[in-house]
Amino acid sequence: MPEKVGFVGLGIMGQPMARNLRRAGYPLWVFARREERATPLVEEGATACVSPRAVAENSDIVITIVSDTPDVEAVILGENGIVPGARPGAVVVDMSTISPSATRAIAARLGEQGVEMLDAPVSGGEQGAIDGTLSIMVGGRPEVFERVRPLFQVMGKNVVHVGETGAGQVTKACNQVVIAQTIAAVGEALMLATASGVDPAKVRQALLGGFAASRVLEVHGQRMLDRNFQPGFMARLHQKDMRIVLETAHELGIALPGAAQVAQYINALVGGGDGGLDSSAVVSVQERMSQVGIKSTTA
Amino acid sequence: MPEKVGFVGLGIMGQPMARNLRRAGYPLWVFARREERATPLVEEGATACVSPRAVAENSDIVITIVSDTPDVEAVILGENGIVPGARPGAVVVDMSTISPSATRAIAARLGEQGVEMLDAPVSGGEQGAIDGTLSIMVGGRPEVFERVRPLFQVMGKNVVHVGETGAGQVTKACNQVVIAQTIAAVGEALMLATASGVDPAKVRQALLGGFAASRVLEVHGQRMLDRNFQPGFMARLHQKDMRIVLETAHELGIALPGAAQVAQYINALVGGGDGGLDSSAVVSVQERMSQVGIKSTTA
Amino acid sequence: MPEKVGFVGLGIMGQPMARNLRRAGYPLWVFARREERATPLVEEGATACVSPRAVAENSDIVITIVSDTPDVEAVILGENGIVPGARPGAVVVDMSTISPSATRAIAARLGEQGVEMLDAPVSGGEQGAIDGTLSIMVGGRPEVFERVRPLFQVMGKNVVHVGETGAGQVTKACNQVVIAQTIAAVGEALMLATASGVDPAKVRQALLGGFAASRVLEVHGQRMLDRNFQPGFMARLHQKDMRIVLETAHELGIALPGAAQVAQYINALVGGGDGGLDSSAVVSVQERMSQVGIKSTTA
Amino acid sequence: MPEKVGFVGLGIMGQPMARNLRRAGYPLWVFARREERATPLVEEGATACVSPRAVAENSDIVITIVSDTPDVEAVILGENGIVPGARPGAVVVDMSTISPSATRAIAARLGEQGVEMLDAPVSGGEQGAIDGTLSIMVGGRPEVFERVRPLFQVMGKNVVHVGETGAGQVTKACNQVVIAQTIAAVGEALMLATASGVDPAKVRQALLGGFAASRVLEVHGQRMLDRNFQPGFMARLHQKDMRIVLETAHELGIALPGAAQVAQYINALVGGGDGGLDSSAVVSVQERMSQVGIKSTTA
Repeated sequence: MPEKVGFVGLGIMGQPMARNLRRAGYPLWVFARREERATPLVEEGATACVSPRAVAENSDIVITIVSDTPDVEAVILGENGIVPGARPGAVVVDMSTISPSATRAIAARLGEQGVEMLDAPVSGGEQGAIDGTLSIMVGGRPEVFERVRPLFQVMGKNVVHVGETGAGQVTKACNQVVIAQTIAAVGEALMLATASGVDPAKVRQALLGGFAASRVLEVHGQRMLDRNFQPGFMARLHQKDMRIVLETAHELGIALPGAAQVAQYINALVGGGDGGLDSSAVVSVQERMSQVGIKSTTA
Repeated sequence: MPEKVGFVGLGIMGQPMARNLRRAGYPLWVFARREERATPLVEEGATACVSPRAVAENSDIVITIVSDTPDVEAVILGENGIVPGARPGAVVVDMSTISPSATRAIAARLGEQGVEMLDAPVSGGEQGAIDGTLSIMVGGRPEVFERVRPLFQVMGKNVVHVGETGAGQVTKACNQVVIAQTIAAVGEALMLATASGVDPAKVRQALLGGFAASRVLEVHGQRMLDRNFQPGFMARLHQKDMRIVLETAHELGIALPGAAQVAQYINALVGGGDGGLDSSAVVSVQERMSQVGIKSTTA
Repeated sequence: MPEKVGFVGLGIMGQPMARNLRRAGYPLWVFARREERATPLVEEGATACVSPRAVAENSDIVITIVSDTPDVEAVILGENGIVPGARPGAVVVDMSTISPSATRAIAARLGEQGVEMLDAPVSGGEQGAIDGTLSIMVGGRPEVFERVRPLFQVMGKNVVHVGETGAGQVTKACNQVVIAQTIAAVGEALMLATASGVDPAKVRQALLGGFAASRVLEVHGQRMLDRNFQPGFMARLHQKDMRIVLETAHELGIALPGAAQVAQYINALVGGGDGGLDSSAVVSVQERMSQVGIKSTTA
Repeated sequence: MPEKVGFVGLGIMGQPMARNLRRAGYPLWVFARREERATPLVEEGATACVSPRAVAENSDIVITIVSDTPDVEAVILGENGIVPGARPGAVVVDMSTISPSATRAIAARLGEQGVEMLDAPVSGGEQGAIDGTLSIMVGGRPEVFERVRPLFQVMGKNVVHVGETGAGQVTKACNQVVIAQTIAAVGEALMLATASGVDPAKVRQALLGGFAASRVLEVHGQRMLDRNFQPGFMARLHQKDMRIVLETAHELGIALPGAAQVAQYINALVGGGDGGLDSSAVVSVQERMSQVGIKSTTA
């Protein structure tokens, strides 16, 4: 008999992820702050609940995917949250991107009730969620990971158990550190090309063959050339993730100057009202600084 | 009848590149400052010359690949250089990595003599030179590019004509901007993982599946984990390339803060006596700053 | 009749500030988490209280100076805090360095009870607190500032009313932005001198005459030469202040790349166990990066 | 009998410096590329010469103050330069701001002819040159410094002998490192104030009392508030000086990330056509990045 699955948070990511689980045959109890977000899933056979607590009362495994640390704390530890509803032996799988240290504190609190926790943030964006091709970075006890693994394999393609509780969030933070800086590096390169009178589209093409080659150059580089920053990964979410990165660096007492610098550009992007664009729009901050507009001279 | 090819500069890169041309059947005249570098090629049928001038007197196409701008100026414009020897209609192909503006000045000088020039810097390192799989970024007139293309295809795999004279060097500068910052970003990520108590090898593995995926993460990331920075692309050459990048930004009046920051780390790496290591050893400067040693806990 | 003054927080800064008020003739009710901190003041005539609430019940003006935002929230808004004890018409003067937005929220909460609030963070260190020569940056309503001004003039020398509620904290944040970067700039300059074989003490002397002249060059520059980072302004407090700066930049959507970079060095300093040293010890992170030890060759 | 003084380079700085020497009674031989620059000095009794060589033939001490390293090399080492004209025992005093390593090479070349050299770059701007209140940082042999000291005291106020040949240029580089970063730090602070809704003029006023106090905050901070960047120290000269700083860091193998970052902003300022403004106009690059315009709300 399949595990009964609860799902809390039916946003841009959560809804298609929940749908994939339902279609794979899992019985599903769902909750969303905005009730109408549950409707399409109910039509496919899910049961809508009035609170995270109600979801937990009906489920073996409860997945949460909401915006930020306080949201996770609210749906798990709040008055009508998962804690008062969860049965001993249940598993909470938080797929939000939040602080590693907050994750560890929440897991400890759940552990007191005999409830297990995995942190399992994702990357791959809305399209990856729809296609079930997300990368999923999982922290927590190995046997709990094994238990939940079939669900992960429905939602994602690259599923890696990276270590103990919090390790998933640390890995996601590392991911955002690399992506943010690579985006900014690609922005600098395309700007250097344009300012030098060389077609940035040809430069991108030439670089795709060598060591500089990356998915960022391929995908986000093209967005910069097309000036098309929608849809994608919203800058305001990247801003939040970089805040987590910098808070973690502060807690650990390590220096991440590159990440810190790019985080400032993202601040300026969001402050300028463009927080809803893909975070590769950060190139516009770089362009403003130098008064250079990246522009391909070929189609 | 194949073009007669001259080759000036038989260093780590030049020697295997010249050998590939010889083995593809091109008649070859060569010059190296250190005479003994020519011997292996002579044994395969090349003719050693006493000066770049003598090389030019015998060749239709002269390839140069030396260290820095003054070296290129010496072998092309010097007293016993290519200019006094080159025949009208000849082509000089400079495959060194030098300044775009110096390249344009040299091409103008050659043009006065009726000699064409291409700038065609490469990436891919010693291994790529040996295997004939270099990326070659070419600037210059399209018809000249077409004439030299068969030679490029012997030496490299990803051959792109990116624009007018200097465009190849600009593209190479863009390449180095992206690689240097991606290396530093990977360094920060692996350090963040280690300081957080998460195995950096697992983090790298998890990131290889998503947008953070890049050749740098794959290759240089592994070098950082292995503490094995030999062989590779020497830091002192990357330092020189970043100097070209920053001089170009200065000339153009644009801001490249990310590139400028990483260039400082490379300075410190070279200053510490490690200029002969692969430039991904820059991670050791990041580690020193934070007193964190990246270390995988698995194999 | 002088205002009855309450004082919450008798740390390195608070104790000498409270003592100066007592010696200036103000009746004084005090509270410190560690009871023994109150003893010396009680010996000079102050009354020790069991809670911030008890302090507030006895005072017209309550001064708080504690470590961080949660501490201020605890002593003002907590169960035995100032809010339940304060009389309408009382004034709370928070002289801690905390977040401007948290300050505005606390002031709003106090306003609901008819209690006024000023934010009045200080600079000048322990010595300035002892000597009564602090700089005090005050935000809040002008008439409230006028009422408290006589107390400020006992504790400080440079007392400026900079604007509405929160403006004092913003000004303190600006102060820390300038000091942190100037410290790092002086560190780079002295390192450049040393690496060039020039006596950094003479360089500092020469710079003191021109535009580079600053109190930081004078005081912290000398600390760097003397390798004497005690006493001073503790790096861990500067780290906290830079966290506030970066959180504020995040909230406002502005880019402060220079501040962000220096904050990383301070992270590494504190992470290395040196959070108790003066924040000019950040030079040791810069020195580690470049493996250069600043050293005067004279005296 | 006073030393016969030669003066090469009668630009914004050179002309008032030469005039002060003439008015102090020194016999003066002068040369300027643009002849008309010499006229006002000739009217005060100086003798115009046709070349630096002619100046050297008539002088005991030859002062040079021109734009950049190649200019100094031209007037000293060129065909009609100082070298062919200088008498053994003469002293060349270069008051330009150029590279320390180039300075050492020039001094070695002069030494071969029995000509002494001091490097003596200045700070204080046009006004300091007119008023004779420059800061002068001198490198070279102590006895040569003593010989030239009376001339320095006519031109400047803060005259410091900092070490051997090149030490003056190193000190000037340190000066520019501190000033550039302090300017950018003040820019960030005033922007943070403005974005927070606090009057940046009041913030500046409050900061002038504490450790953040500096001549840069006082003078350049006011320029930022007044949006008045003329006259001052031209950004394009600061750009050149930062290039020297970064080249020196490259040569020495040290990391100066703060200086490197600010140099990028200056690039963007100059690239935007504002190289003729005071370098504190760099704040406009910071403002563009964050789309915040610093503006005082008081007079």
